[in-house]
Amino acid sequence: MTRGRFVVFEGIDASGKSTQARRAATQFSALFTFEPGDSPLGADLRRWLLDAATPMTPITESLLMLADRSHHVSAVIEPSLAAGRSVISDRFSSSTIAYQGYGRGVDLAQLRAATDLAIGACRADLTILLDVPVEVANDRRVRDYRDRFESADLDFHERVRAGYLELAEHDPAHWFVLDGTAEEHAVTAAVNDRLCQLDWPGA
Amino acid sequence: MTRGRFVVFEGIDASGKSTQARRAATQFSALFTFEPGDSPLGADLRRWLLDAATPMTPITESLLMLADRSHHVSAVIEPSLAAGRSVISDRFSSSTIAYQGYGRGVDLAQLRAATDLAIGACRADLTILLDVPVEVANDRRVRDYRDRFESADLDFHERVRAGYLELAEHDPAHWFVLDGTAEEHAVTAAVNDRLCQLDWPGA
Repeated sequence: MTRGRFVVFEGIDASGKSTQARRAATQFSALFTFEPGDSPLGADLRRWLLDAATPMTPITESLLMLADRSHHVSAVIEPSLAAGRSVISDRFSSSTIAYQGYGRGVDLAQLRAATDLAIGACRADLTILLDVPVEVANDRRVRDYRDRFESADLDFHERVRAGYLELAEHDPAHWFVLDGTAEEHAVTAAVNDRLCQLDWPGA
Repeated sequence: MTRGRFVVFEGIDASGKSTQARRAATQFSALFTFEPGDSPLGADLRRWLLDAATPMTPITESLLMLADRSHHVSAVIEPSLAAGRSVISDRFSSSTIAYQGYGRGVDLAQLRAATDLAIGACRADLTILLDVPVEVANDRRVRDYRDRFESADLDFHERVRAGYLELAEHDPAHWFVLDGTAEEHAVTAAVNDRLCQLDWPGA
Protein backbone atom coordinates (compact mmCIF):
# COMPACT_ATOMS: atom_id res chain seq x y z
CA MET A 1 0.00 0.00 0.00
CA THR A 2 1.45 3.37 -1.02
CA ARG A 3 1.44 5.80 1.84
CA GLY A 4 -0.74 8.89 1.36
CA ARG A 5 0.69 12.38 0.91
CA PHE A 6 0.52 14.84 3.80
CA VAL A 7 0.06 18.51 2.90
CA VAL A 8 -0.32 21.36 5.38
CA PHE A 9 -1.68 24.89 4.89
CA GLU A 10 -0.28 27.58 7.16
CA GLY A 11 -0.69 31.31 7.58
CA ILE A 12 -2.01 33.95 9.94
CA ASP A 13 -5.72 34.11 10.63
CA ALA A 14 -7.78 35.37 7.66
CA SER A 15 -5.01 34.48 5.22
CA GLY A 16 -7.50 32.35 3.28
CA LYS A 17 -5.74 29.08 4.11
CA SER A 18 -8.83 27.22 5.37
CA THR A 19 -10.73 27.86 2.12
CA GLN A 20 -7.74 26.81 0.03
CA ALA A 21 -7.04 23.73 2.17
CA ARG A 22 -10.64 22.52 1.76
CA ARG A 23 -10.55 23.08 -2.00
CA ALA A 24 -7.25 21.22 -2.34
CA ALA A 25 -8.61 18.30 -0.32
CA THR A 26 -11.57 18.02 -2.69
CA GLN A 27 -9.35 18.39 -5.76
CA PHE A 28 -6.90 15.68 -4.66
CA SER A 29 -9.41 13.38 -2.89
CA ALA A 30 -7.60 13.86 0.39
CA LEU A 31 -8.98 13.81 3.92
CA PHE A 32 -9.46 17.40 5.11
CA THR A 33 -8.60 18.02 8.73
CA PHE A 34 -7.54 20.91 10.97
CA GLU A 35 -5.83 21.95 14.20
CA PRO A 36 -6.45 22.54 16.93
CA GLY A 37 -9.42 20.39 17.63
CA ASP A 38 -10.39 17.79 15.01
CA SER A 39 -11.23 15.00 17.52
CA PRO A 40 -13.46 14.83 20.63
CA LEU A 41 -10.45 15.40 22.93
CA GLY A 42 -9.16 18.05 20.52
CA ALA A 43 -12.48 19.91 20.52
CA ASP A 44 -12.26 20.20 24.28
CA LEU A 45 -8.66 21.43 24.10
CA ARG A 46 -9.60 23.88 21.34
CA ARG A 47 -12.29 25.36 23.57
CA TRP A 48 -9.68 26.12 26.26
CA LEU A 49 -7.09 27.32 23.76
CA LEU A 50 -9.36 29.80 22.05
CA ASP A 51 -11.08 31.03 25.21
CA ALA A 52 -9.50 34.45 25.69
CA ALA A 53 -11.03 34.62 29.19
CA THR A 54 -8.85 31.85 30.68
CA PRO A 55 -5.41 33.17 31.67
CA MET A 56 -2.77 30.77 30.41
CA THR A 57 0.98 31.12 29.90
CA PRO A 58 2.48 30.75 26.40
CA ILE A 59 4.10 27.52 27.60
CA THR A 60 0.81 25.98 28.76
CA GLU A 61 -0.69 27.09 25.44
CA SER A 62 2.19 25.35 23.61
CA LEU A 63 1.82 22.11 25.55
CA LEU A 64 -1.95 21.99 24.98
CA MET A 65 -1.37 22.58 21.26
CA LEU A 66 1.21 19.78 21.23
CA ALA A 67 -1.08 17.41 23.15
CA ASP A 68 -3.82 18.11 20.62
CA ARG A 69 -1.37 17.59 17.75
CA SER A 70 -0.02 14.35 19.11
CA HIS A 71 -3.58 13.02 19.45
CA HIS A 72 -4.44 14.31 15.97
CA VAL A 73 -1.43 12.50 14.49
CA SER A 74 -2.16 9.16 16.16
CA ALA A 75 -5.96 9.20 15.85
CA VAL A 76 -6.53 10.92 12.49
CA ILE A 77 -3.49 11.67 10.33
CA GLU A 78 -1.33 8.54 10.61
CA PRO A 79 -4.17 6.00 10.22
CA SER A 80 -5.27 7.78 7.03
CA LEU A 81 -1.75 8.03 5.57
CA ALA A 82 -1.02 4.40 6.44
CA ALA A 83 -4.22 3.34 4.65
CA GLY A 84 -3.02 5.15 1.53
CA ARG A 85 -5.34 8.11 1.87
CA SER A 86 -3.71 11.53 1.61
CA VAL A 87 -4.34 14.18 4.27
CA ILE A 88 -4.59 17.95 3.94
CA SER A 89 -4.48 19.80 7.24
CA ASP A 90 -5.36 23.39 8.05
CA ARG A 91 -2.39 24.07 10.43
CA PHE A 92 0.21 21.68 11.86
CA SER A 93 3.59 21.94 13.64
CA SER A 94 4.69 25.20 12.09
CA SER A 95 1.71 26.97 13.68
CA THR A 96 3.15 26.29 17.14
CA ILE A 97 6.64 27.41 16.12
CA ALA A 98 5.23 30.58 14.51
CA TYR A 99 2.58 31.51 17.12
CA GLN A 100 4.00 30.34 20.44
CA GLY A 101 7.68 30.53 19.42
CA TYR A 102 8.09 33.59 17.20
CA GLY A 103 4.85 35.21 18.35
CA ARG A 104 4.83 34.65 22.12
CA GLY A 105 8.55 34.18 22.67
CA VAL A 106 8.66 30.57 23.91
CA ASP A 107 12.22 29.23 23.50
CA LEU A 108 12.43 27.85 19.95
CA ALA A 109 14.85 25.01 20.73
CA GLN A 110 12.68 23.74 23.60
CA LEU A 111 9.58 24.10 21.45
CA ARG A 112 11.17 22.11 18.61
CA ALA A 113 12.25 19.36 21.03
CA ALA A 114 8.73 19.09 22.45
CA THR A 115 7.33 19.12 18.90
CA ASP A 116 9.59 16.19 18.00
CA LEU A 117 8.14 14.29 20.95
CA ALA A 118 4.59 15.16 19.86
CA ILE A 119 4.76 14.25 16.16
CA GLY A 120 7.49 11.60 15.97
CA ALA A 121 8.15 10.72 12.33
CA CYS A 122 5.00 12.40 10.98
CA ARG A 123 6.25 15.23 8.76
CA ALA A 124 4.45 17.17 6.05
CA ASP A 125 5.50 16.42 2.47
CA LEU A 126 4.72 20.03 1.69
CA THR A 127 3.63 23.08 3.67
CA ILE A 128 1.86 25.84 1.75
CA LEU A 129 2.13 29.27 3.34
CA LEU A 130 -0.50 31.82 2.37
CA ASP A 131 1.30 35.02 3.17
CA VAL A 132 -0.72 38.19 3.72
CA PRO A 133 0.23 41.47 5.39
CA VAL A 134 -1.22 41.77 8.88
CA GLU A 135 -3.27 44.85 7.91
CA VAL A 136 -4.92 42.94 5.07
CA ALA A 137 -5.81 40.07 7.39
CA ASN A 138 -7.19 42.52 9.94
CA ASP A 139 -9.39 44.22 7.34
CA ARG A 140 -10.78 40.84 6.34
CA ARG A 141 -11.90 40.09 9.88
CA VAL A 142 -15.16 41.88 10.36
CA ARG A 143 -16.43 39.80 13.26
CA ASP A 144 -17.02 41.34 16.66
CA TYR A 145 -15.89 38.25 18.55
CA ARG A 146 -12.17 37.66 18.65
CA ASP A 147 -10.53 34.61 20.21
CA ARG A 148 -7.29 34.52 22.20
CA PHE A 149 -5.18 34.73 19.06
CA GLU A 150 -7.26 37.16 17.07
CA SER A 151 -7.37 39.55 20.01
CA ALA A 152 -3.58 39.74 20.31
CA ASP A 153 -1.92 42.90 19.08
CA LEU A 154 -0.64 43.76 15.62
CA ASP A 155 3.00 43.31 16.67
CA PHE A 156 2.22 39.74 17.70
CA HIS A 157 0.80 38.92 14.28
CA GLU A 158 3.76 40.64 12.60
CA ARG A 159 6.11 38.36 14.53
CA VAL A 160 4.04 35.30 13.58
CA ARG A 161 4.08 36.30 9.91
CA ALA A 162 7.84 36.90 9.97
CA GLY A 163 8.32 33.55 11.73
CA TYR A 164 6.44 31.71 8.99
CA LEU A 165 8.51 33.41 6.29
CA GLU A 166 11.72 32.47 8.10
CA LEU A 167 10.65 28.83 8.40
CA ALA A 168 9.80 28.73 4.68
CA GLU A 169 13.07 30.38 3.72
CA HIS A 170 15.11 27.77 5.60
CA ASP A 171 13.44 24.74 4.02
CA PRO A 172 12.40 25.62 0.45
CA ALA A 173 12.11 21.96 -0.58
CA HIS A 174 9.19 21.49 1.83
CA TRP A 175 7.59 24.93 1.71
CA PHE A 176 5.70 26.83 -0.97
CA VAL A 177 4.92 30.48 -0.29
CA LEU A 178 2.00 32.15 -2.05
CA ASP A 179 0.80 35.72 -2.05
CA GLY A 180 -2.47 35.39 -0.17
CA THR A 181 -3.65 38.82 -1.34
CA ALA A 182 -4.02 37.54 -4.90
CA GLU A 183 -7.50 36.81 -6.25
CA GLU A 184 -8.92 33.67 -4.58
CA HIS A 185 -9.20 31.54 -7.73
CA ALA A 186 -5.73 32.55 -8.86
CA VAL A 187 -4.43 31.27 -5.50
CA THR A 188 -6.35 28.00 -6.00
CA ALA A 189 -4.79 27.58 -9.46
CA ALA A 190 -1.27 28.19 -8.08
CA VAL A 191 -1.89 25.70 -5.25
CA ASN A 192 -3.11 23.07 -7.72
CA ASP A 193 -0.09 23.58 -9.97
CA ARG A 194 2.29 23.03 -7.09
CA LEU A 195 0.37 20.07 -5.65
CA CYS A 196 0.33 18.35 -9.05
CA GLN A 197 4.10 18.04 -8.72
CA LEU A 198 3.69 15.76 -5.68
CA ASP A 199 3.62 12.02 -6.21
CA TRP A 200 0.01 11.24 -5.20
CA PRO A 201 -0.84 7.59 -4.49
CA GLY A 202 -3.11 6.06 -7.12
CA ALA A 203 -2.59 9.02 -9.43
CA MET B 1 9.63 37.97 51.53
CA THR B 2 11.12 34.50 52.07
CA ARG B 3 10.04 32.12 49.36
CA GLY B 4 7.89 29.18 50.52
CA ARG B 5 9.15 25.59 50.54
CA PHE B 6 7.91 23.20 47.87
CA VAL B 7 7.50 19.57 48.90
CA VAL B 8 6.14 16.79 46.69
CA PHE B 9 4.76 13.36 47.61
CA GLU B 10 5.18 10.62 45.04
CA GLY B 11 4.38 6.93 44.80
CA ILE B 12 2.20 4.43 43.00
CA ASP B 13 -1.54 4.56 43.50
CA ALA B 14 -2.66 3.40 46.98
CA SER B 15 0.79 4.04 48.43
CA GLY B 16 -0.82 6.32 51.01
CA LYS B 17 0.85 9.47 49.66
CA SER B 18 -2.35 11.56 49.40
CA THR B 19 -3.19 11.01 53.07
CA GLN B 20 0.38 11.81 54.15
CA ALA B 21 0.59 14.86 51.86
CA ARG B 22 -2.60 16.32 53.37
CA ARG B 23 -1.38 15.69 56.92
CA ALA B 24 1.98 17.31 56.19
CA ALA B 25 0.27 20.35 54.66
CA THR B 26 -1.77 20.80 57.84
CA GLN B 27 1.25 20.22 60.06
CA PHE B 28 3.44 22.77 58.24
CA SER B 29 0.67 25.27 57.33
CA ALA B 30 1.35 24.73 53.64
CA LEU B 31 -1.05 24.92 50.70
CA PHE B 32 -2.13 21.40 49.76
CA THR B 33 -2.49 20.77 46.05
CA PHE B 34 -2.39 17.83 43.64
CA GLU B 35 -1.86 16.74 40.03
CA PRO B 36 -3.35 16.22 37.64
CA GLY B 37 -6.24 18.59 37.88
CA ASP B 38 -6.13 21.20 40.64
CA SER B 39 -7.50 24.09 38.49
CA PRO B 40 -10.58 24.45 36.24
CA LEU B 41 -8.49 23.70 33.12
CA GLY B 42 -6.72 20.94 35.03
CA ALA B 43 -9.99 19.33 36.10
CA ASP B 44 -10.99 19.07 32.46
CA LEU B 45 -7.61 17.58 31.50
CA ARG B 46 -7.81 15.17 34.45
CA ARG B 47 -11.16 13.90 33.20
CA TRP B 48 -9.60 13.00 29.84
CA LEU B 49 -6.44 11.61 31.40
CA LEU B 50 -8.22 9.25 33.77
CA ASP B 51 -10.93 8.19 31.32
CA ALA B 52 -9.84 4.67 30.40
CA ALA B 53 -12.39 4.65 27.55
CA THR B 54 -10.59 7.28 25.44
CA PRO B 55 -7.73 5.73 23.43
CA MET B 56 -4.68 7.94 23.81
CA THR B 57 -0.99 7.29 23.11
CA PRO B 58 1.55 7.53 25.95
CA ILE B 59 2.94 10.65 24.27
CA THR B 60 -0.43 12.44 24.20
CA GLU B 61 -0.89 11.40 27.82
CA SER B 62 2.53 12.90 28.64
CA LEU B 63 1.81 16.18 26.88
CA LEU B 64 -1.57 16.57 28.60
CA MET B 65 0.10 15.90 31.96
CA LEU B 66 2.74 18.51 31.15
CA ALA B 67 0.15 21.06 30.01
CA ASP B 68 -1.71 20.53 33.29
CA ARG B 69 1.55 20.82 35.25
CA SER B 70 2.64 23.98 33.49
CA HIS B 71 -0.73 25.57 34.28
CA HIS B 72 -0.55 24.27 37.86
CA VAL B 73 2.89 25.85 38.30
CA SER B 74 1.91 29.27 36.92
CA ALA B 75 -1.60 29.48 38.39
CA VAL B 76 -1.21 27.76 41.77
CA ILE B 77 2.30 26.76 42.89
CA GLU B 78 4.48 29.74 41.91
CA PRO B 79 2.09 32.45 43.17
CA SER B 80 1.92 30.71 46.54
CA LEU B 81 5.69 30.20 46.85
CA ALA B 82 6.38 33.77 45.75
CA ALA B 83 3.99 35.03 48.44
CA GLY B 84 5.98 33.10 51.06
CA ARG B 85 3.44 30.30 51.51
CA SER B 86 4.83 26.78 51.25
CA VAL B 87 3.21 24.22 48.94
CA ILE B 88 2.80 20.47 49.36
CA SER B 89 1.73 18.67 46.20
CA ASP B 90 0.38 15.18 45.74
CA ARG B 91 2.41 14.32 42.57
CA PHE B 92 4.61 16.54 40.38
CA SER B 93 7.22 16.06 37.63
CA SER B 94 8.50 12.71 38.79
CA SER B 95 5.07 11.18 38.22
CA THR B 96 5.42 11.80 34.48
CA ILE B 97 8.95 10.43 34.38
CA ALA B 98 7.89 7.35 36.37
CA TYR B 99 4.49 6.64 34.74
CA GLN B 100 4.90 7.76 31.13
CA GLY B 101 8.68 7.28 30.95
CA TYR B 102 9.55 4.16 32.95
CA GLY B 103 5.99 2.78 32.89
CA ARG B 104 4.84 3.39 29.32
CA GLY B 105 8.21 3.63 27.62
CA VAL B 106 8.19 7.22 26.39
CA ASP B 107 11.78 8.32 25.66
CA LEU B 108 13.21 9.63 28.94
CA ALA B 109 15.44 12.29 27.39
CA GLN B 110 12.57 13.74 25.34
CA LEU B 111 10.30 13.60 28.36
CA ARG B 112 12.84 15.42 30.54
CA ALA B 113 13.31 18.11 27.88
CA ALA B 114 9.54 18.65 27.62
CA THR B 115 9.32 18.68 31.45
CA ASP B 116 11.97 21.43 31.56
CA LEU B 117 9.81 23.46 29.19
CA ALA B 118 6.72 22.84 31.35
CA ILE B 119 8.11 23.69 34.80
CA GLY B 120 10.94 26.12 34.09
CA ALA B 121 12.77 26.89 37.33
CA CYS B 122 10.07 25.45 39.62
CA ARG B 123 11.75 22.49 41.37
CA ALA B 124 10.75 20.65 44.54
CA ASP B 125 12.92 21.27 47.60
CA LEU B 126 12.19 17.70 48.63
CA THR B 127 10.29 14.77 47.11
CA ILE B 128 9.02 12.12 49.51
CA LEU B 129 8.53 8.71 47.95
CA LEU B 130 6.16 6.33 49.71
CA ASP B 131 7.38 3.02 48.41
CA VAL B 132 5.06 0.01 48.53
CA PRO B 133 5.19 -3.31 46.68
CA VAL B 134 2.70 -3.44 43.81
CA GLU B 135 0.84 -6.39 45.39
CA VAL B 136 0.29 -4.42 48.59
CA ALA B 137 -1.04 -1.44 46.64
CA ASN B 138 -3.33 -3.76 44.67
CA ASP B 139 -4.73 -5.33 47.84
CA ARG B 140 -5.49 -1.87 49.20
CA ARG B 141 -7.57 -0.96 46.17
CA VAL B 142 -10.98 -2.47 46.75
CA ARG B 143 -12.91 -0.21 44.39
CA ASP B 144 -14.68 -1.67 41.35
CA TYR B 145 -13.96 1.33 39.18
CA ARG B 146 -10.42 1.61 37.90
CA ASP B 147 -9.13 4.53 35.89
CA ARG B 148 -6.67 4.41 33.01
CA PHE B 149 -3.70 4.01 35.32
CA GLU B 150 -5.23 1.69 37.88
CA SER B 151 -6.42 -0.65 35.13
CA ALA B 152 -2.94 -1.08 33.66
CA ASP B 153 -1.20 -4.38 34.34
CA LEU B 154 1.02 -5.36 37.26
CA ASP B 155 4.17 -5.17 35.12
CA PHE B 156 3.37 -1.53 34.36
CA HIS B 157 3.15 -0.67 38.04
CA GLU B 158 6.35 -2.62 38.74
CA ARG B 159 8.15 -0.47 36.16
CA VAL B 160 6.70 2.70 37.68
CA ARG B 161 7.82 1.65 41.17
CA ALA B 162 11.31 0.76 39.93
CA GLY B 163 11.46 4.10 38.08
CA TYR B 164 10.67 6.03 41.25
CA LEU B 165 13.34 4.15 43.19
CA GLU B 166 15.89 4.88 40.46
CA LEU B 167 15.05 8.60 40.48
CA ALA B 168 15.41 8.69 44.27
CA GLU B 169 18.70 6.80 44.19
CA HIS B 170 20.23 9.28 41.73
CA ASP B 171 19.36 12.40 43.73
CA PRO B 172 19.43 11.54 47.45
CA ALA B 173 19.73 15.21 48.48
CA HIS B 174 16.25 15.93 47.10
CA TRP B 175 14.51 12.60 47.75
CA PHE B 176 13.43 10.82 50.91
CA VAL B 177 12.21 7.23 50.54
CA LEU B 178 9.87 5.76 53.12
CA ASP B 179 8.47 2.26 53.52
CA GLY B 180 4.80 2.86 52.71
CA THR B 181 3.79 -0.48 54.26
CA ALA B 182 4.64 0.78 57.76
CA GLU B 183 1.85 1.74 60.12
CA GLU B 184 0.20 4.97 58.95
CA HIS B 185 1.06 7.08 61.99
CA ALA B 186 4.63 5.81 61.99
CA VAL B 187 4.90 7.04 58.39
CA THR B 188 3.49 10.42 59.45
CA ALA B 189 6.06 10.67 62.22
CA ALA B 190 8.91 9.84 59.84
CA VAL B 191 7.63 12.41 57.31
CA ASN B 192 7.44 15.08 60.02
CA ASP B 193 10.97 14.31 61.23
CA ARG B 194 12.35 14.73 57.74
CA LEU B 195 10.30 17.85 56.96
CA CYS B 196 11.46 19.52 60.19
CA GLN B 197 14.95 19.56 58.69
CA LEU B 198 13.77 21.91 55.93
CA ASP B 199 14.15 25.64 56.41
CA TRP B 200 10.45 26.68 56.57
CA PRO B 201 9.73 30.39 56.14
CA GLY B 202 8.53 32.03 59.31
CA ALA B 203 9.52 29.01 61.39
